[in-house]
Amino acid sequence: MNQSINNLRTKAGALSSGLYGKDFLLTWEKSLEDLGTILTVAEDLKLLRDQNISSRCFDSGLAISQFRDNSTRTRFSFASAANLLGLAVQDLDEGKSQIAHGETVRETSAMISFLSDIIGIRDDMFLGAGNAFMREVGTALDEAFADGVLPQRPGIINLQCDIDHPTQSMADLLHLKSVFGSLESLKGKKIAMTWAYSPSYGKPLSVPQGIIGLMTRLGMQVDLAFPEGYGLIPEVVELAGKQATEHGGNFRLVNSMEEAFTDADIVYPKSWAPFNVMQQRTKLLRNNDHPGLKGLEQECLANNARYKNWECTEEKMKLTKNGNALYLHCLPADISGVSCKEGEVAATVFERYRIPLYKQAGFKPYIIAAMILTNRFQNPADVLRNLEQRGRNRVL
Amino acid sequence: MNQSINNLRTKAGALSSGLYGKDFLLTWEKSLEDLGTILTVAEDLKLLRDQNISSRCFDSGLAISQFRDNSTRTRFSFASAANLLGLAVQDLDEGKSQIAHGETVRETSAMISFLSDIIGIRDDMFLGAGNAFMREVGTALDEAFADGVLPQRPGIINLQCDIDHPTQSMADLLHLKSVFGSLESLKGKKIAMTWAYSPSYGKPLSVPQGIIGLMTRLGMQVDLAFPEGYGLIPEVVELAGKQATEHGGNFRLVNSMEEAFTDADIVYPKSWAPFNVMQQRTKLLRNNDHPGLKGLEQECLANNARYKNWECTEEKMKLTKNGNALYLHCLPADISGVSCKEGEVAATVFERYRIPLYKQAGFKPYIIAAMILTNRFQNPADVLRNLEQRGRNRVL
Amino acid sequence: MNQSINNLRTKAGALSSGLYGKDFLLTWEKSLEDLGTILTVAEDLKLLRDQNISSRCFDSGLAISQFRDNSTRTRFSFASAANLLGLAVQDLDEGKSQIAHGETVRETSAMISFLSDIIGIRDDMFLGAGNAFMREVGTALDEAFADGVLPQRPGIINLQCDIDHPTQSMADLLHLKSVFGSLESLKGKKIAMTWAYSPSYGKPLSVPQGIIGLMTRLGMQVDLAFPEGYGLIPEVVELAGKQATEHGGNFRLVNSMEEAFTDADIVYPKSWAPFNVMQQRTKLLRNNDHPGLKGLEQECLANNARYKNWECTEEKMKLTKNGNALYLHCLPADISGVSCKEGEVAATVFERYRIPLYKQAGFKPYIIAAMILTNRFQNPADVLRNLEQRGRNRVL
Repeated sequence: MNQSINNLRTKAGALSSGLYGKDFLLTWEKSLEDLGTILTVAEDLKLLRDQNISSRCFDSGLAISQFRDNSTRTRFSFASAANLLGLAVQDLDEGKSQIAHGETVRETSAMISFLSDIIGIRDDMFLGAGNAFMREVGTALDEAFADGVLPQRPGIINLQCDIDHPTQSMADLLHLKSVFGSLESLKGKKIAMTWAYSPSYGKPLSVPQGIIGLMTRLGMQVDLAFPEGYGLIPEVVELAGKQATEHGGNFRLVNSMEEAFTDADIVYPKSWAPFNVMQQRTKLLRNNDHPGLKGLEQECLANNARYKNWECTEEKMKLTKNGNALYLHCLPADISGVSCKEGEVAATVFERYRIPLYKQAGFKPYIIAAMILTNRFQNPADVLRNLEQRGRNRVL
Repeated sequence: MNQSINNLRTKAGALSSGLYGKDFLLTWEKSLEDLGTILTVAEDLKLLRDQNISSRCFDSGLAISQFRDNSTRTRFSFASAANLLGLAVQDLDEGKSQIAHGETVRETSAMISFLSDIIGIRDDMFLGAGNAFMREVGTALDEAFADGVLPQRPGIINLQCDIDHPTQSMADLLHLKSVFGSLESLKGKKIAMTWAYSPSYGKPLSVPQGIIGLMTRLGMQVDLAFPEGYGLIPEVVELAGKQATEHGGNFRLVNSMEEAFTDADIVYPKSWAPFNVMQQRTKLLRNNDHPGLKGLEQECLANNARYKNWECTEEKMKLTKNGNALYLHCLPADISGVSCKEGEVAATVFERYRIPLYKQAGFKPYIIAAMILTNRFQNPADVLRNLEQRGRNRVL
Repeated sequence: MNQSINNLRTKAGALSSGLYGKDFLLTWEKSLEDLGTILTVAEDLKLLRDQNISSRCFDSGLAISQFRDNSTRTRFSFASAANLLGLAVQDLDEGKSQIAHGETVRETSAMISFLSDIIGIRDDMFLGAGNAFMREVGTALDEAFADGVLPQRPGIINLQCDIDHPTQSMADLLHLKSVFGSLESLKGKKIAMTWAYSPSYGKPLSVPQGIIGLMTRLGMQVDLAFPEGYGLIPEVVELAGKQATEHGGNFRLVNSMEEAFTDADIVYPKSWAPFNVMQQRTKLLRNNDHPGLKGLEQECLANNARYKNWECTEEKMKLTKNGNALYLHCLPADISGVSCKEGEVAATVFERYRIPLYKQAGFKPYIIAAMILTNRFQNPADVLRNLEQRGRNRVL
């Protein structure tokens, strides 16, 4: 048994519990206090693991994952988070299931949930569909629980949808907290969320939307930059503006990476497909229109190619605050001369920030674990203190 | 630690243990007493979980799953059951293995079993093959254990074969017990197992066979109805008749859904392929005769279409006892106007019974867990009492 | 609680710990003492399990598996080993990941490792690539750990590469120890590692290389036999010769199965592709040259067919010591008249040795578990004694 280390961040008092039993679908549906709770729980879970104290708070239980798109980072983060808390991952592979059979979402949702505690869903392919699907699952679970079909109502965690990528943006925020010392110190800091050139097409909008939807609530100066025609979902952009006003920050749309980078403390250059292209693509995908998709891809790549100068170069980095803004990316990045000929970021810039970038990614398992824990336990601070006091070794 | 809740169904005394170390392949190979034990253990496992008491009786161990056909419900039920007891699921995916290599069943069976406690197999594609395959695996395991190759002889659970679907029929029975109050109260009740129209073809026979093979042992009046030419495996039909006689029930073959429904307490309308079609299909599948399969499908769908009136409608439901027989289905159902244009059941009927149907499905994880537990432990009542007394929380 | 059984092999004293924190990539990189430690830990883990004592030394943690080629035996062995120690397996399926996206090995390696304890890799398709890939992953992990990206440096276990198959050869060695009583008794024993005919092509060289690379260190007389043109990687052959000299054994290249079998105590007849064919094949695979591969296959099969007499027959077995040498194979074998028309071994020979062969395979889970345990714990003897004293039941 370990000595009680008594150095959890939660020791000062109870944490807010507005998260209990609530799905985590969009950061902007959560109070700032609740988001702070997620960060604190994530930090404490990391602290416990670093001290070899087991965070296993489930003796058994399933964490269902449903990936409707490829994933490495998030898949492993979800698996790591579930395992850290004692849950076993069961993947819902639609190809091996009977879902194609015409089964309703309502039915499948109940069928996989009898002994499940949490469901993580990635669904980012169809604009207007991913987040809606998660809510459809949520409603089905509510009903099934109310009807006595389920003994518990499993929580849902958005592992990336068409609108938001909350496990990413929250991991990004924890990274910023860790680099800048506190959430308070982010006030007034400038972050440039900008489009960047990529030789691929059809990248989801959820990362930039997640960033502007979260960072505008922290009193930051958020610049969103993209070439003409590469707009995001209008409602999210509008929300970002409103939130900035409300929280004493600033939100601007600008038309050049240079302008966004100027005096920025943080830059987040990342490619995405234009909103209207995603709309067309969604229609074509739904119709299985392969020639149409091919055509759209050609058109879109040709259009992208007009903006090859939207690359995060050393020169552009010099425009940032003291020339050394923190560079962020959700990874994998399209690195010029490394993973592609011309891409989102110059190899030297990427390499200089590689270690902090990897650390940024390393927060995701803990963020997801914190989302699971706060969804399942009414008083997360108690749980953490109990785990610390139990002092069970993770590794013998 | 929980207080000892002392309200398990097993408290009255020991449970029969004829199940210990025996594969669960067909319900009619088990004594009625043993089937009752499975139900009781399933109920108690549910009770423990509902009271947040961990049923983990394995500190480590593997549950192998081998699905030779798609599955959602049974896959998740198996995963849930294994996890509830502390076993990790390892899937034997023949596509990723070296089995195609010409390896014998005897060898593969031994190779996957060195540290395995249970093997769940779904193999329902080939008539005359699925159950035989399970027995071949069983014989291989017997030999490997006798030869000292394996330190234990893993148990096998039939997760659906060409003959029976025991995890389904036993979950159905637990549902009936729960709805009607006891197994005794099922005596004299009428159940209509009837064919129903579906726009698909090639559905296995195991569900109707499982139902007539089980329910005829409970003193029930079992009507099996199907259009001419849609017969089941003759041996199972014969067995059902013999069992009905033996157990003071009744078994009839009738030619109309209406006749079967008349005064029924329970109806189970569900599509299946004719026995002789399954025989042809098996031959064609073995020969990889794709044109032949296509032709058979056309022919069979055309034949099906002659029986579109075999639909469980509101009108037919009115023929049942007091017009409100319990409607059963193994799910997913072909619901007219929902999952297909015309199908097995009218949308209003399905919707009216949706909640009980989902509850019916919810028994399956516990039935499988009970099958695992009774296979691995000689005295299941002791195990349950030990788990209750240990009182370890499932969720912290 | 069990009584302390106090019969572990480790009780005599501490075990060498040169394995702690070191990847297991090639047996010849490990000291003989360390290899002995692996065997002892494997035996003790088996002993504990046979006495129903849990070897769970991780309360949570992930074991990553990355199979770049099909596998049954090793996949299940890895899963069994991880589970025995308390780790959950998470498979890195490159098809479902974003690796194709141009992501670097360095990045992926870090991304999957934040909460991982061990990584098992099979990569045997490309000559010159598999082992190199593992080292590239290892270097990436070293860097990520040094840079503070990872809280621990996960260990890597070679689950078969282009050069060695250490989990196989070590399981083989444990089998020999078990059959002949001790490692010492292997001194002077003759083992015939010989090529055998197979109607397939492109089998990896790692098994024969692993055998000559390991057994020449035990003072054995190792004969390596193959038809002209079927040579192994020259460096490994050279190493085998040097090791034999150093350890008082003998290493010969011979041109006939008969010569190798003569007076052999142990025979290991197994097909493999010629080194130079594997070189061509690697080039063609890299270029996705399907016609080229087809052509090479034809050519190679035709060449194989010239050596159909390289079959382990009853007649050839009569040449061995007292006509009853121990027959080894890594399985699955190409058995004449069983898994193919003409193959590596006569059905009667295989059948006579089937049980010992299966036992040979049964050591692999424990060997892998011992590799994990010795990689993660500095003093494996202490861990084993702690597990024994803890005496927690594996099965309730």
